[in-house]
Amino acid sequence: MIKVGIIGSTGYAGAEIVRLIQGHPEAEVVWFGSRSYIDENYSSIYGNLFELVDAKCMDDNMDELSIKADVIFTATPQGLCASLVNEDILKNTKIIDLSADFRLKDVSVYEKWYKIEHKAPQYIEEAVYGLCEINRDKIKNARIVANPGCYTSCSILTAYPLIKEGLIDPDTLIVDALSGVSGAGRGAKVANLYCEVNESAKPYGVANHRHTPEIEEQLSYAAGKEMVINFTPHLVPMNRGILATEYASLNVKNGSLPSKDDIRAAYEKYYKNEKFIRLLPDGVYPETRWVEGSNYVDIGFKIDERTKRVIMMGTIDNLVKGAAGQAVQNMNILFGLDEMTGLSLVPLFP
Amino acid sequence: MIKVGIIGSTGYAGAEIVRLIQGHPEAEVVWFGSRSYIDENYSSIYGNLFELVDAKCMDDNMDELSIKADVIFTATPQGLCASLVNEDILKNTKIIDLSADFRLKDVSVYEKWYKIEHKAPQYIEEAVYGLCEINRDKIKNARIVANPGCYTSCSILTAYPLIKEGLIDPDTLIVDALSGVSGAGRGAKVANLYCEVNESAKPYGVANHRHTPEIEEQLSYAAGKEMVINFTPHLVPMNRGILATEYASLNVKNGSLPSKDDIRAAYEKYYKNEKFIRLLPDGVYPETRWVEGSNYVDIGFKIDERTKRVIMMGTIDNLVKGAAGQAVQNMNILFGLDEMTGLSLVPLFP
Amino acid sequence: MIKVGIIGSTGYAGAEIVRLIQGHPEAEVVWFGSRSYIDENYSSIYGNLFELVDAKCMDDNMDELSIKADVIFTATPQGLCASLVNEDILKNTKIIDLSADFRLKDVSVYEKWYKIEHKAPQYIEEAVYGLCEINRDKIKNARIVANPGCYTSCSILTAYPLIKEGLIDPDTLIVDALSGVSGAGRGAKVANLYCEVNESAKPYGVANHRHTPEIEEQLSYAAGKEMVINFTPHLVPMNRGILATEYASLNVKNGSLPSKDDIRAAYEKYYKNEKFIRLLPDGVYPETRWVEGSNYVDIGFKIDERTKRVIMMGTIDNLVKGAAGQAVQNMNILFGLDEMTGLSLVPLFP
Amino acid sequence: MIKVGIIGSTGYAGAEIVRLIQGHPEAEVVWFGSRSYIDENYSSIYGNLFELVDAKCMDDNMDELSIKADVIFTATPQGLCASLVNEDILKNTKIIDLSADFRLKDVSVYEKWYKIEHKAPQYIEEAVYGLCEINRDKIKNARIVANPGCYTSCSILTAYPLIKEGLIDPDTLIVDALSGVSGAGRGAKVANLYCEVNESAKPYGVANHRHTPEIEEQLSYAAGKEMVINFTPHLVPMNRGILATEYASLNVKNGSLPSKDDIRAAYEKYYKNEKFIRLLPDGVYPETRWVEGSNYVDIGFKIDERTKRVIMMGTIDNLVKGAAGQAVQNMNILFGLDEMTGLSLVPLFP
Repeated sequence: MIKVGIIGSTGYAGAEIVRLIQGHPEAEVVWFGSRSYIDENYSSIYGNLFELVDAKCMDDNMDELSIKADVIFTATPQGLCASLVNEDILKNTKIIDLSADFRLKDVSVYEKWYKIEHKAPQYIEEAVYGLCEINRDKIKNARIVANPGCYTSCSILTAYPLIKEGLIDPDTLIVDALSGVSGAGRGAKVANLYCEVNESAKPYGVANHRHTPEIEEQLSYAAGKEMVINFTPHLVPMNRGILATEYASLNVKNGSLPSKDDIRAAYEKYYKNEKFIRLLPDGVYPETRWVEGSNYVDIGFKIDERTKRVIMMGTIDNLVKGAAGQAVQNMNILFGLDEMTGLSLVPLFP
Repeated sequence: MIKVGIIGSTGYAGAEIVRLIQGHPEAEVVWFGSRSYIDENYSSIYGNLFELVDAKCMDDNMDELSIKADVIFTATPQGLCASLVNEDILKNTKIIDLSADFRLKDVSVYEKWYKIEHKAPQYIEEAVYGLCEINRDKIKNARIVANPGCYTSCSILTAYPLIKEGLIDPDTLIVDALSGVSGAGRGAKVANLYCEVNESAKPYGVANHRHTPEIEEQLSYAAGKEMVINFTPHLVPMNRGILATEYASLNVKNGSLPSKDDIRAAYEKYYKNEKFIRLLPDGVYPETRWVEGSNYVDIGFKIDERTKRVIMMGTIDNLVKGAAGQAVQNMNILFGLDEMTGLSLVPLFP
Repeated sequence: MIKVGIIGSTGYAGAEIVRLIQGHPEAEVVWFGSRSYIDENYSSIYGNLFELVDAKCMDDNMDELSIKADVIFTATPQGLCASLVNEDILKNTKIIDLSADFRLKDVSVYEKWYKIEHKAPQYIEEAVYGLCEINRDKIKNARIVANPGCYTSCSILTAYPLIKEGLIDPDTLIVDALSGVSGAGRGAKVANLYCEVNESAKPYGVANHRHTPEIEEQLSYAAGKEMVINFTPHLVPMNRGILATEYASLNVKNGSLPSKDDIRAAYEKYYKNEKFIRLLPDGVYPETRWVEGSNYVDIGFKIDERTKRVIMMGTIDNLVKGAAGQAVQNMNILFGLDEMTGLSLVPLFP
Repeated sequence: MIKVGIIGSTGYAGAEIVRLIQGHPEAEVVWFGSRSYIDENYSSIYGNLFELVDAKCMDDNMDELSIKADVIFTATPQGLCASLVNEDILKNTKIIDLSADFRLKDVSVYEKWYKIEHKAPQYIEEAVYGLCEINRDKIKNARIVANPGCYTSCSILTAYPLIKEGLIDPDTLIVDALSGVSGAGRGAKVANLYCEVNESAKPYGVANHRHTPEIEEQLSYAAGKEMVINFTPHLVPMNRGILATEYASLNVKNGSLPSKDDIRAAYEKYYKNEKFIRLLPDGVYPETRWVEGSNYVDIGFKIDERTKRVIMMGTIDNLVKGAAGQAVQNMNILFGLDEMTGLSLVPLFP
């Protein structure tokens, strides 16, 4: 059994790791870290786990934890993981960091967008960006996996094959995305109260959301050149789900636009064997409800011949493929398990 | 592998059976019955099952189905199951009926409350009421299991031990219940449109809801005398979940009211070993979110010394313990499996 | 123009007073009190009032306020109003207190249920309970109006005529109520975050909610004897609305139960001329959506001959008739205006 | 008093006209047309109007109606208004058509996008596109006002000044929009059931939604050249509200991008005196909750210097400014009233 420690187990992403490990045949949680609820019963905070988890929340003690756990998930605010990691810890355990600390290779970009100093820049280089479908091979031997952001996972996977295959012009990419409220975390803020969010939709972080450089960096690798994009997140009144609608101009080749089949072929080239990516039939577009509670990414597209653009659409459950599910998928890769282990979750509808 | 046929597989309860069987290690669906969607791909209707179910919807053909399936779930409107069942079918297969056709032992009560003629009264006597925790032994050898209603499962289990143990006066029982909208089914009705239901709460079926006689019959067995109750369902804007708040006067014994411990002891007497029933700690009351997607029944209670009543509260997911989950639990009992098989679902939150 | 001061203008009830006064032809807000947002633009907090309100939030200064305002609404937590009121203030202005400080005539009951010391018990006697339809005449000359609680307004008005007329047994009254989330206020609490409340229903304050003694006191006046009741509030996922479902045993007179017409006659006796109370036709029950945004109370009922009980159902918008609307109605009474002034709001649906 | 007839008064837009006229001091509804509910009490369908509207639904009889009413609102599916209008009717009354029948000047575009034959092309030329803030002068003397679509009103007003002033490149305009569910109407369709829509977000009509040519036509007038755009609507789980997020490349002038002040100046040039358009402060973006129930359009923007694009964002209540409110505003213009008459509605929050 893989012994799992969680720092930040009482946030929504942390609690989702608990839920997933609960159904994982080869892993068990040995440390429910939570600074806010030290010594409280975990199931008094997450009543869904009543009689399923019999443990108390513990303070963060990375040294002790690194001895007890084979892998540590840090589901914490930016900066914490970087402030804790060191060689002693990495000798004993693997780290899957759900924060942004090790996602960006350029530390100055990190410090500019997150407005904090990076406390462990020496580990940035070796950390592997844990977007499993793209970086699987590198993840296998990593000590630190930088688990991608929720918007990021969805946005990148939706556009990746078309950029990689040169079917679209990277400079024209616009990502317009919607998120359920769990993405905002479990902190007690007026802005996330039920009555503030319910019956409303709003854009936020316009032209400065922190997932922007992460999307740009990864897609730039695919494009083979630096990209800047527009990324606009919106909050919509639902618990879970991210939907990314992405626009880009099609590259004309030999005087003609790529056909529907060309686009589909590009997606299939990269995703045909991916168990967690479902390429939807023509005319079917993703809906967040169809992936809720699961690790699936649903992708669809539409060519608009009038504007010579393609509209790419992708959806994930932000807490699963956008956080805890991908983290567990990364764990499976790290420990040589089938990636599906513990993740064969049928989406819950309605 | 148990071969499962479903009549009515495109309703919400039917689709939930599909979801559960998908995760069941010893069963598989061999027949996706749906009169409304004959020959359509099942996953074009339930997109959550895209790439998981590769089958088309089929017309209802009980004769053929009874040969192909070891068990048939009828997730259909009242009257259909009774109109189809016969000796030939029962020779070949088991029936778990999610409609009300075989729940009430007195055919006149059925015909009065449902306002239709019963087409197979000869099977009423042998049919077993499939409330697993109460009728487990009888279910084992049944040919027809009458799977309980959603409100009913929750209402009965919440009050059963206190009535059985004589701690409350059956004549004072009032059941006030809330339900999510999936309980209203997937029929295209104006009353169930998003905008009609969202941001509103309403009572309905006041003093004449059809689950009333079902609750009364089962609790009357426990009370050892005929009971009439008030049962008031309310529709509240959420997808899933039933919450029953039940009121009854405590029976005074030897001049004093039952204590909190007496009440708890009664619940434990019947439910201590029940895997799907979670008796909550003192001061904790059930919330539908903690059981969503799972087969759990969460129960709490509070004694009001001022009014000498006890308030009993129970919650279930109407589509799981209130329909498909209990149906699968019944299947497990019928086929000698551990009742938890395929039902170890961790509730999904948020 | 009546000059209105609001203490607590950035809570939901306070903001609703602002909305209502905005549409009131004879009143204007001259003081937007808010300790949390001193010096901030009111419309930066309540964006709905952008370009409609051009004022900054101010600290609470009752002395100054009492000179500037003809009436002060205190939409604040329990205890604040009592701690501020004094003879100097009452010489200058009227107070409509939306907290519970002056609702209960017995100070020991207040201190027991609210667990705080009452700072101005000398004003309890003269304060008038501001349930307009019942206490209209006394309100006219009051200096302090104790504006009723949200659950209370709905619960009392729904049962009042039947108790007053002796049609039901007061000792059997059970009030089971649902509330939208705005009733919980705008404080930043985890429990009221979107994801905690959405897709869930829960009971709370079981057998000890603070509106209980308030309902009991007022209905006891109607009954002519002391009553104790069960009152169980539930939180359901919607912004606004209270629905009270109330149960009581019918009093048998001369060997027979009251008829439907008897019940209706009792309601009409008290409410026939009430503009804000709508007695629904037979077979129609209240739904919160039909009163949203308005000052209406919708009431329906059903006799259950099997159990000899009547089920009374009432609904209000908790922020309007349950708080700000009733407060404005009280203001209208205090200043000799038609009660409908500024309150002819058509409910918003959907 | 202006006598108002409504064809389609039981749809959501029709019912919103009723709500607004109810609060309009100079108009009254004299005909509640509704083919689906002939002879039923209007308030039995819209319970919010119980005791406010005492009228029965009537069949559509345009001849009779044209005599009784000073203005007819047709809140009906495409094609109906065009099939009913004729010279006799127009001699007697004004028509404000909430369908698309007279919005597009090119009948072939109408027939291509709507896939129906236009039954009254002879009136297309004279009909005036009723976007009040743009076409006010032409509306004054119109016989037929083509009331704009909901997405359209929001999308056009949000981009109009920047296109008109040449600040953005029309060929780069992308409109990504979100809508609440009331925009889908009150028809009984499975797709609009509560459980299908709740807790989900989805794109639809991708690259072929019918509001596309309407946006293009109107913005082309502003651009002084033909435009094609991408327009992608999404359904999100809320009752009301449209949010349009629009992207366009800024035009470089004299080697530099337009500044924030340039953009703001353009908006102010057209909207400074518009009562229903609120240009938000820098850094504030529109949220649907702040306009709910009102006729406001809230607009904000953000320049992204990295991508040299501007992101324009606008929001309206789809049933008010996107349908009934604008229709009443058009009526006010037609009859020489102040445009605000009956429309000074404070947005309802929460």
